[in-house]
Amino acid sequence: MKYKYMSVEELKKLEQRLNIEYENIKTSNLSLDMSRGKPASAQLDLSNDILAKPIDNYITSEGIDSRNYGILDGITEIKTLFSSLLDIPNKNIIIGGNSSLNLIYDAFARLYIFGADGSEPWGKCKTKILCPVPGYDRHFAICEEFGFEMINIPMTDEGPDMDMVENLVREDENIKGIICVPLYSNPDGICYSDSTVERLSCMQTKAKDFKIFWDNAYAIHHVYKEHKLANIFSLSKKYGTDDRIIYFFSTSKITFPGSGVAMIASGDNYIEEIKKHFGIQTIGHNKLNQLRTFNFFHNAEGVKEHMKKLGDLLKEKFDIVLNTLDKEVADKGILKWNKPDGGYFISVFTLPGCASETVKLAREAGLVLTGAGATYPYHNDPEDSNIRLAPSYPTCGELQKAIDIFCVCLKLATIRKLIEQKEQQ
Amino acid sequence: MKYKYMSVEELKKLEQRLNIEYENIKTSNLSLDMSRGKPASAQLDLSNDILAKPIDNYITSEGIDSRNYGILDGITEIKTLFSSLLDIPNKNIIIGGNSSLNLIYDAFARLYIFGADGSEPWGKCKTKILCPVPGYDRHFAICEEFGFEMINIPMTDEGPDMDMVENLVREDENIKGIICVPLYSNPDGICYSDSTVERLSCMQTKAKDFKIFWDNAYAIHHVYKEHKLANIFSLSKKYGTDDRIIYFFSTSKITFPGSGVAMIASGDNYIEEIKKHFGIQTIGHNKLNQLRTFNFFHNAEGVKEHMKKLGDLLKEKFDIVLNTLDKEVADKGILKWNKPDGGYFISVFTLPGCASETVKLAREAGLVLTGAGATYPYHNDPEDSNIRLAPSYPTCGELQKAIDIFCVCLKLATIRKLIEQKEQQ
Repeated sequence: MKYKYMSVEELKKLEQRLNIEYENIKTSNLSLDMSRGKPASAQLDLSNDILAKPIDNYITSEGIDSRNYGILDGITEIKTLFSSLLDIPNKNIIIGGNSSLNLIYDAFARLYIFGADGSEPWGKCKTKILCPVPGYDRHFAICEEFGFEMINIPMTDEGPDMDMVENLVREDENIKGIICVPLYSNPDGICYSDSTVERLSCMQTKAKDFKIFWDNAYAIHHVYKEHKLANIFSLSKKYGTDDRIIYFFSTSKITFPGSGVAMIASGDNYIEEIKKHFGIQTIGHNKLNQLRTFNFFHNAEGVKEHMKKLGDLLKEKFDIVLNTLDKEVADKGILKWNKPDGGYFISVFTLPGCASETVKLAREAGLVLTGAGATYPYHNDPEDSNIRLAPSYPTCGELQKAIDIFCVCLKLATIRKLIEQKEQQ
Repeated sequence: MKYKYMSVEELKKLEQRLNIEYENIKTSNLSLDMSRGKPASAQLDLSNDILAKPIDNYITSEGIDSRNYGILDGITEIKTLFSSLLDIPNKNIIIGGNSSLNLIYDAFARLYIFGADGSEPWGKCKTKILCPVPGYDRHFAICEEFGFEMINIPMTDEGPDMDMVENLVREDENIKGIICVPLYSNPDGICYSDSTVERLSCMQTKAKDFKIFWDNAYAIHHVYKEHKLANIFSLSKKYGTDDRIIYFFSTSKITFPGSGVAMIASGDNYIEEIKKHFGIQTIGHNKLNQLRTFNFFHNAEGVKEHMKKLGDLLKEKFDIVLNTLDKEVADKGILKWNKPDGGYFISVFTLPGCASETVKLAREAGLVLTGAGATYPYHNDPEDSNIRLAPSYPTCGELQKAIDIFCVCLKLATIRKLIEQKEQQ
């Protein structure tokens, strides 16, 4: 029965019952964590050959000693692998260190200090960034760090609301960019439609140095079904807007987050501009890590095979969360959620005003969830409704416990809110 | 005989003879390079166990899975090793990626954007940086990238001219920093005296956010003799100026430049400020690389043992250069040079106006040297005199050829200059 049709008395009875359940949970002193998109040990184990396998040959196919200095944009082996995996021309790719987040931060810092394409530095403008919401908290933290104003863009089933995006970027020259996780978006698991990708490529922007931060973190992280993302590189090339794209990718959630290989790519001109700055910033990134990663996969097919195994492990976790939500709350009218086909998260929406309380109750019962509001710029979820569930890290047993606790806390928070509302009427 | 005492006729005869020698060299189509401080293969081979040795245990002493996300400031093992090696408190250290240059660049970028210690961002001031000269070209390139004005500070046998430094920093609040390679300086191989280090620690600076960029790149890179650098950390702690220090170090020239482990350290307050920004910039650096490096050395003693072997290899190279210079040009009065006790370079000073021509002649004869002027800000050596010789990379056979060619080119360039001067008199 839907909670909203229940009387105050019925709700109070239910609250009593849930309170007992909740207090029982508290006494078990649990310590569960589904706050971050951290791979489980079992997922990492699939890459342990990287730790075991020696590097027999450190000379690359181009005769470069990968132990020594040099090669600013990455060894050919790994560039070619990424190029083939993501269908981006080799010449548009630079391989970075172990973290695409670091590349994103540095890209923002570069734009802040130097601007792009000969325009004014972003630090000297009233720079605004479009942020599809809910989104990735670390992206928002970067924008906030640089003092760039963030503008919420609601997500639709096809990605960000493109009518809104087009209208805003056409009119306001201070809107300098949009930050996207285009496939299996964090946290909603939404896949940008072909039309969305095309409209992003061809839209008219008042800012001449407009950039699309294309954080394709989950490019091959399929779980239930394999979505294919339109190729923003070839589309933007067609429209002559390829320098607008700054594309990010890494193997952090493919091999080891602790030693991934990250990539940045952009159009023919802007990638050269980036390279000039890189040439001052470093002599070259970790080539042996690039080689180790290449030796483990050999080619794009090797990566895809590996991702199937990772996907299967993640599927078990997703199943636990989705089945439990179905069983526990589907008929209560207190939670909406997406069933994502891939990525790392399940994003849920409580009734307005119930997210913070749910997260708080969970924390007090020994379950850490991503903070309510974290999925919005400035930690401000205007509805106090979205919670990001990250099921990857706990074991299946722990996860079942965690999601059970989540359901109890959610019910309790919602019932209390409903009682309060009904009593005020 | 000293060239300057020779008549024009004598010089012209000598020039003819050298010309024949030079043209002969050209016909052999050599391709030699002593331009960069790149370790030789034989040096790298000493670390090949890092490539061969599997990681049997990826769990750190603190129970952290180094394959996964997390640990912003580095695994305890490597922090403790660096702490003990450099005598810097563990809590003041952050381990970075594979390049200390990258950490230096990022430190400048951070100061440009955010300032430090609550002061105005350096990008908003007319920031000036003191640059001991000759110095490291990549340091100067970073200052130039950010538009910071560089002020030349002459080097003495004890480090930068401290009278000049003290006077400048006391008067001008736009002088925000000084960039130092305090031990076996690049390129002169000068070791800062205890007095220099103490004066840097205690000097009064008009800029409240003054920083000393302490790039201790050759901290343990002894060749002929082991110099001990005064501990700027404990000295500045004594004077309450420890937040003034930003200390850099890496294993790039210890293990592999392609996969080193870099470090940044600073005073109690400023290191926390850096950490806050790091927490936005990345989730953590490559922990498996840290672990591999630790597993290879085990402790500071292990590093020191290893450095003895590296020093022996470098000594052979230094010997070749120094002996040849002694033999070929010592009595000619055309070149001054330092005999460094460690580091990576031999820095030579031609007669004024002869460096560029020497480098040009060498290049045309198949020998690449560091560009003349590279050791000065804006590539402007006011005397056109300094040339940095980097003997590490070539084999001993190649190096002997290279330094022979250098001597021929130097003599030729100097003789031509002297003839020109004498004929103008």
